[in-house]
Formats: sequence, structure tokens, C-alpha cells
Amino acid sequence: MADELTPQAIHDDVRAILTQVKTGHPLVHCLTNNVVKQVTANALLAAGAAPAMVEDAVEAGEFAHVASGVLVNVGTLTPDIRQAMTSAVSAAQSANTPWVLDPVAVGGLSVRTQFARSILDSRPAAIRGNPSEIAALAGTGSGGRGVDSTDSVEAVTTIAAELSHRSGAVVAASGPTDLVVSTVARTHVTGGHPMLQQVIGTGCALGALTAATLGVAQLPAQHHAAVVASHALVSAAGTVAGQTASAPGHFAVAWLDALHTLSADDVRELITLDSEQA
Amino acid sequence: MADELTPQAIHDDVRAILTQVKTGHPLVHCLTNNVVKQVTANALLAAGAAPAMVEDAVEAGEFAHVASGVLVNVGTLTPDIRQAMTSAVSAAQSANTPWVLDPVAVGGLSVRTQFARSILDSRPAAIRGNPSEIAALAGTGSGGRGVDSTDSVEAVTTIAAELSHRSGAVVAASGPTDLVVSTVARTHVTGGHPMLQQVIGTGCALGALTAATLGVAQLPAQHHAAVVASHALVSAAGTVAGQTASAPGHFAVAWLDALHTLSADDVRELITLDSEQA
Amino acid sequence: MADELTPQAIHDDVRAILTQVKTGHPLVHCLTNNVVKQVTANALLAAGAAPAMVEDAVEAGEFAHVASGVLVNVGTLTPDIRQAMTSAVSAAQSANTPWVLDPVAVGGLSVRTQFARSILDSRPAAIRGNPSEIAALAGTGSGGRGVDSTDSVEAVTTIAAELSHRSGAVVAASGPTDLVVSTVARTHVTGGHPMLQQVIGTGCALGALTAATLGVAQLPAQHHAAVVASHALVSAAGTVAGQTASAPGHFAVAWLDALHTLSADDVRELITLDSEQA
Repeated sequence: MADELTPQAIHDDVRAILTQVKTGHPLVHCLTNNVVKQVTANALLAAGAAPAMVEDAVEAGEFAHVASGVLVNVGTLTPDIRQAMTSAVSAAQSANTPWVLDPVAVGGLSVRTQFARSILDSRPAAIRGNPSEIAALAGTGSGGRGVDSTDSVEAVTTIAAELSHRSGAVVAASGPTDLVVSTVARTHVTGGHPMLQQVIGTGCALGALTAATLGVAQLPAQHHAAVVASHALVSAAGTVAGQTASAPGHFAVAWLDALHTLSADDVRELITLDSEQA
Repeated sequence: MADELTPQAIHDDVRAILTQVKTGHPLVHCLTNNVVKQVTANALLAAGAAPAMVEDAVEAGEFAHVASGVLVNVGTLTPDIRQAMTSAVSAAQSANTPWVLDPVAVGGLSVRTQFARSILDSRPAAIRGNPSEIAALAGTGSGGRGVDSTDSVEAVTTIAAELSHRSGAVVAASGPTDLVVSTVARTHVTGGHPMLQQVIGTGCALGALTAATLGVAQLPAQHHAAVVASHALVSAAGTVAGQTASAPGHFAVAWLDALHTLSADDVRELITLDSEQA
Repeated sequence: MADELTPQAIHDDVRAILTQVKTGHPLVHCLTNNVVKQVTANALLAAGAAPAMVEDAVEAGEFAHVASGVLVNVGTLTPDIRQAMTSAVSAAQSANTPWVLDPVAVGGLSVRTQFARSILDSRPAAIRGNPSEIAALAGTGSGGRGVDSTDSVEAVTTIAAELSHRSGAVVAASGPTDLVVSTVARTHVTGGHPMLQQVIGTGCALGALTAATLGVAQLPAQHHAAVVASHALVSAAGTVAGQTASAPGHFAVAWLDALHTLSADDVRELITLDSEQA
């Protein structure tokens, strides 16, 4: 992997990280919402990672120690699952395991907003959401309409950069073009397909795949590239799925197939990356 | 939309409502069972609606205020989820948001039977289930075999009408021909495909889609047509899926595709509606 | 069915049991993990069984009385679900309903390991897991890597036989060749496809299908054949799916189709069974 965070170094790292997910089968511990668990697990398996979803608070702490990466997605919180998340985040932090925060629908709903902000102190390696969720998590927006964003990626660029500085996390805001911002660089990921929005769980699976790519990144300096890598993979698979499917049932099937089939080189050809140093 | 509940007026409203779901993207809050959340969300997305599944009791109340429609499906009750349902139903009632009760397996199982009957007082806009569930909810049957109906739609016509009068809800009983009964009319919806019974969640998704169609109905007088509309859509998509798929894996994929692809006119051509004033 | 447990008698019973699942529609009560509920229900429906997933402790006990078979899969334990499992297992035992224990990730995680061992006293009819889980449940291994096995089927043959003698259960360890061991016989089931490992829930669905095949077995002497039958069906469907699908999205769809389409004779032609008396 590369020594410096030049755009070329980032893009070389993206390729290496995507290959390493396929060959290294990182174990990803997902504490995620009840709607998307199956598709999330299937997306991880398709990409080469190994999913696990342990929900007991004691076991969640045990498991975060052996996992390569951890996802915390606040889509369907209950008191029990909040406890398991707190336990997993604490274990991940003490074991230096990278963890990802997906602040689903933060802003409009009180319990998750308070909870997501409270675990920001435990230093997530990455935060990924739609622009409204990123703004609401940062404290500058009121959130979107349920899980739908009412802000654009462009509108939250400054907010995302500030959130990255404050939290130490790489921050990603998803849209037609995804934005990945860290303290060292800023990357736009262009590709994908509008039908990704019409299949439940593609965004949540992206959070899990981000935990997988972070899990194979060997250095914190590669965390920016790892987050770009997961976004590039999900978008590239969407592009490919959209070439054969015109409706969401077949699109979902083709998207899983593409997560499995696409090589790191394929991804790089299907997606446009535009990086600059911060 | 139409002024009177003549059969023609109902059928015109069905067409208008199906179009409005596609264009208005109603936000549907689903408190539903753990088996069908993914397929329910995908069915809503395919039909043009926006799904959300908030399970914390505080948030469920908050969310029912902003949703266009709410679904309460009692398939996998726990103490926590009952509390969230009670909170959502109460918020829906105070916000005049239409909500749907799906009494899965009511009759044979004690906790859900008592719970489902208790929330009947909170004036659901619609109740949908199989004939055995409708009879058991009404207090005149012992329920079916788990989720399977042991009664026919014909056998529960009078019971459904009485339940509608008592609860104020439009009552729908699903079968090879679906029955939709309200205080103003009675409609039979004929179409669909037997393989709809061999894919999990098509009935539960119908409950969610009913919350979507109710969510775009502008007047309570259109609630009858809204319930007919969701049943017509699910059946029409089943008919189309059965034309290309001969086994349940491909059928499920094709059914989701058809929910997305079929226009309101397509649905009307694929399905036979037979309405009479009550 | 056959009188003796000769290999030929076992293999005749396998055929009869697979046919009976299709015609008898056994009701299977699944207390299983949150990741695989949808695919598990769809696999049961495809094979001809009727799934139900009741999670309230009171109702789980009620339901285990009417079910033909019960599955307890410890993949995502919570205090509530452990209580429902205990209630269901107790009711199954008192009603002589066969129940299956799937010790997902037992070994590495403390809560489930203690819980799974504690319910072994309630005489499961079958235990199915990967080799590492079987060894850990028996107390002779430390478990695998999350849900991945780090032991081979061959390495656990003696342990599985001892666990069968101790628990009274038919014990099955899944791998490229599956091993089914009981106090009366030992069977190897060869077939399947490597991509079964890349679709979430195929192993968990196998546990549920084992509850279905046990549910139609008329005598305890047929329990060995019932466990062989479910493993043969899942493997045969994998073989067929692998003939048309080269990536996991389409493979999952084709696998469900094959569970529905394959006759008992088809299964016997696709799979090699090798049985010997114990």
C-alpha cells in the first residue's frame, strides 16, 4: 500500500483493500436494524466477508474482541440492543477494532439521536449516512423524512468535514455522488444506480461493508481509502445490476451477484473517484 | 375522486389511489413481525411508498405523527413491541393517521388475541387477515392452524360485516377471492395466484400496502376503495409473477418486480372487482 | 416404512419422509435468530412445510403443543427469547413433539454456550451444527470463528457419537459431506455445492427443515432417517442451484426453487448416502 495520501495513493489503497476483503474474509460484527439483517449478511458474504450478528450484551462485548470490524446501525433501537451496542463499542475501542456508526433516521427521532451522539465519544473509525442524517448527527440539521434525506451531499460538505475533525472518524454522506471526508482527504465517488434506493438495505449493507473494508486496512492512514472502497464497491455493483434489471426484485438479486463477481479492477473501471488532500 | 360510493365510484377511486401511491410516496410506519420485515419494506418500496420500522416505544409514538399510515401486525409480539404498538396506535389516533390491524394467528394464541382485541377500541381504519383470523378477532371463531386459515371467505362474510360495524374499520378477509367489507359497501377482489401462499410475507406486505393506500386516501369515504386497491395490487402482481415463475424463489422476485412495474390501469385489467353497496 | 435400521431401510425411510413433508405440510415452530427468519420461513414453505415463529414465552409454550416440530437456534439470544425457548422446549417435551437444537456459534460465546448445554437435558430429537459447534457443545472443543467451523466433519465423528449417546439426539455435523450419527446408525450425505456457504441461512434453514422431517416421522426409530432426509434435501437443492447460478444472488433464488421442485426420487438421485449400523 501507499505511503502518502495523495489521490493516487488513496486509489491504489482502494484496489488493495477490495482485494483483501475477498481473500482475508474479515469477520464483521453487525449490530444493525431488524429490517436489513438478511440482506446485510448476504452482502457481506457476497463480498467475501464473514458476517456475525450477536445481540446479547455480554456476548456482543466478547465478540467485538474477535471481530475485524463492528457496525452499529441505530435503525431499530430497543433498550436491550442499545445495551449490546454500548458493550460492543466499548470492547471495540479497547481492542482497537474499527467500528462504524450508521445514524439511521437520526434527527427526527429523539432516542436514537441522543444515543448516536452519546457513542460518538467512543471514536468510531467511520460514520456513514445520508446527508440529512450526517447533518443531524453533527447537530446542525433536523434530520430528513424518516430514512429519506432532504438535504444534498453538497449541502453537508462543510458539516461533514467538521464532524470528521471533531469525532476523528472518516465521514461519508451517500447520494447520487457519495462524499467521503476525513482529516486528510476528500473523495467523491460517482457511479451506482437510482434503483439502489428502491431495494431495502443497500445503504445499511454499505455500513457493514465499510466495517469489512476498515477491518482489512492495516493502518489508520488507510481508513479513508477503506471507506472509499466500500462505497465504490456498492456503487459499482449497482451500476452492473442496473444493466440487466429494470425492476427492484431482479435488481436486488443482480446486485448481490455483482458484489460477489466484481474484482477490484472491475470496480475501479465502473466508478469515478475524485480525491483531493484536505 | 368520486362523490358517491357506487361500484363505479369505488373502482375509479381504486385507480386514483394506486396512482397516488406511486407519485406521493406515502411514509408507512410498520410495527410488524420479525419474519417479514425485509419483504414488507421491499414491497412498499416497489409500490412507490416509503417504509419505516421504528420499534422503540417513545420513537414509535413520535413517528406515528409524521407517517401517512401505520401498520400493526401482531405476528411476533414481545412485551417491548406491544408497548411500541400501543404508543403508535395512540399517536395515530390523535393525529388522525389511518392505521391497519393485521391479527396474525389471533384465536389460537392467548397473548395476541387479548392484545388485538384490546386495541380494536383505538379505531383502526382497516383490519385485514385470513378468514379464521377475522372470525377469531370478532370473537366468533377459534382461529386457524397457526397462520393457516381453516375457514373460507364466504363463511365469514356476515362476521366481517358485523366486525366492521362494531369497529368502524374496513374489514378484509383474504382468500382465492378477497372480501372487503365496510359499512358502505362490499367488494370481492378476484385474481392473484396460489403461489402467493408459498412466499412468506405476501399477506403481511398486503397489510403494509393497505396502510400506504389508506395514507393517500383523502377522505374516510375513500377508505373502502383504498383497502380494495391494496388487495387488487397484490393480487395483480401475483397474477403477473405466476405467468413467468413456476417455483417460489423466482415467484417472489417477479412479484416484487410487478409491484413496481404495474400501473393502476394494468391492475384494473388483471383483476376482477365486484362491488355492491352495503 | 421399514422395520429395521439397515442402510436400505434408512434410505427407504428418507424417501418416504421427504414425500410426507410435501403432502402433510407439517407445522414447524421456529425459535431462531433474527438474521435468517425470512429465508427459513421461505425454505419451509418451499419444501411443503408450514412455518410459524412465535416469540412470546406464553405463546411459545402454547404453540409448541400444536406444532409438529420445533426448532431452537441460538444465533441471536436475548433474555426474552431464551425464556420463550425454555417454554417451547418444555412444552415440546411434555407433548412428545420432536425438537431440534442448532447451537450456532456455541463455544466462543459464553451465554449461548451455557444456555445450549442447559437445554440438552430436555432431550432434543436432533442436534445439527458445524463440526466446531458440535465439538464445543459436547464440551471438547473451543468452538470455531463466529459461525465458521475450524474443525472437519471427520475430526468430530467420535465426539458426535458420544454426544448422541449422552443426549439421546440424532447428531448431525455439516460439511462438504454431512455426518449424521445416532445410537443406531451412521450416515454420510454427499452432495451440495460450495455456494451454500455464501448464502445466509441455508444452514439455519436446514435446522428448521430437520424439525419438519422429524415432524412427519411416525416413530422415534425413524428419527435417524428424518435427519438424513433434511440434509439430503438441502444438499440436493444446492446441487441443482449450482447448475444454473454462478453467484449467490441467483443461487439463493434457485435453491428455494429447487427445494420446492425436487421430488423425493430427485433428491435420492442427486445425493450419495452411505449408511452403516452403529
